[in-house]
Amino acid sequence: MSDTRNAVILLSGGLDSATVLAQARSQGYACHALSFDYGQRHRAELDAAARVAVQQGAVEHRVSRLDLTMFGGSALTDTRIAVPEQESVGIPITYVPARNTIMLSIALAWAEVLHSRDIFIGVNAVDYSGYPDCRPEYIAAFETMANLATKAGVEGQQLRIHTPLMQLSKAQIIALGTTLGVDYNATVSCYQADASGLACGVCDSCRLRRQGFVEAGVTDATRYVTAR
Amino acid sequence: MSDTRNAVILLSGGLDSATVLAQARSQGYACHALSFDYGQRHRAELDAAARVAVQQGAVEHRVSRLDLTMFGGSALTDTRIAVPEQESVGIPITYVPARNTIMLSIALAWAEVLHSRDIFIGVNAVDYSGYPDCRPEYIAAFETMANLATKAGVEGQQLRIHTPLMQLSKAQIIALGTTLGVDYNATVSCYQADASGLACGVCDSCRLRRQGFVEAGVTDATRYVTAR
Repeated sequence: MSDTRNAVILLSGGLDSATVLAQARSQGYACHALSFDYGQRHRAELDAAARVAVQQGAVEHRVSRLDLTMFGGSALTDTRIAVPEQESVGIPITYVPARNTIMLSIALAWAEVLHSRDIFIGVNAVDYSGYPDCRPEYIAAFETMANLATKAGVEGQQLRIHTPLMQLSKAQIIALGTTLGVDYNATVSCYQADASGLACGVCDSCRLRRQGFVEAGVTDATRYVTAR
Repeated sequence: MSDTRNAVILLSGGLDSATVLAQARSQGYACHALSFDYGQRHRAELDAAARVAVQQGAVEHRVSRLDLTMFGGSALTDTRIAVPEQESVGIPITYVPARNTIMLSIALAWAEVLHSRDIFIGVNAVDYSGYPDCRPEYIAAFETMANLATKAGVEGQQLRIHTPLMQLSKAQIIALGTTLGVDYNATVSCYQADASGLACGVCDSCRLRRQGFVEAGVTDATRYVTAR
């Protein structure tokens, strides 16, 4: 590999970030994968992240612990709020306040210590779930802020937030990952996956995933709790 | 109090943030104080934060745990790096990569859950320590990003990052706090304070603090490890 620049990859354990990791690796980055144990309902995604990091050849994989249940405000961080099983209007209750901002900020700290100027995140503005912090204008604003926040930025080393999936449909993401050798069986997307990673099949995330495989014409081996 | 808007106040336990909390209270905000246990060398500041929150009538005080020692890269989060005891040139080694960005991001999450549009932080561009994330252009960029990141921002409720100390000298901050009834004896500024809160007297933070009291003509009751 001629290019061994360090990059920090936000790796949730889901379909999108697995594809992002594969993409960053294919571009020659030494990939430092970062996951978050933030008290999420679907903790099976952390096991998935560990599997994906190994399969996709990350240089290392770290899990940052951060308790977002202390604030709640989301179906993913407050067990009293149910995960919706029908499509909703507007910003859904699975939105976790400031989650991408917090994750990117911690990735920024690690990037600075690694002398890395490249952070990858699997946000998507096409088949996205209505989250404000998945939009290109948000990412651009974060990048501007990050370059003012850091020593590297002040010293003229511009940091870039890479969003290779931003303009892809879920089907295009799956097609891309398939050509890059991603094993989607290792990933977990479901917002209420059980401890073993079985998916509910009916939450927003499951619906988008299932539809993506159908449209991509790729066999979907996702394991569901029950056939629905 | 006619105005009971919620505000999130970043409270380190030092002199500056104690003054900010008093200022926000004097403006009628219901103050939700937020501190961080990030593995900092000077843990005595967390005890100080708890004292200050009570003294200054915060509605509540929460401590968010987040391990920044997993990345290191600063004299405050890596015990192998010594705290400088002479003035340095450029960005000092006590700079913690992305610290203010991480703290403001987590404050943003809490603010959103509280339906608060106001976050207060005691950054300062005058007597500051050379940290990039204490400059007004950084704060402005964070505010822009925050309004794109959040549900409230999308719905047109503009969030504001208040920096009431930005243009004040350390002496002016102490004078302001004194008129607002801040008990500076409760605060800890030293980067290497011992467990009981005794200050070293020679780090950047101690020097700025000591000089501030002298210039403000206010009695300095800071307790030092040894008379230097």
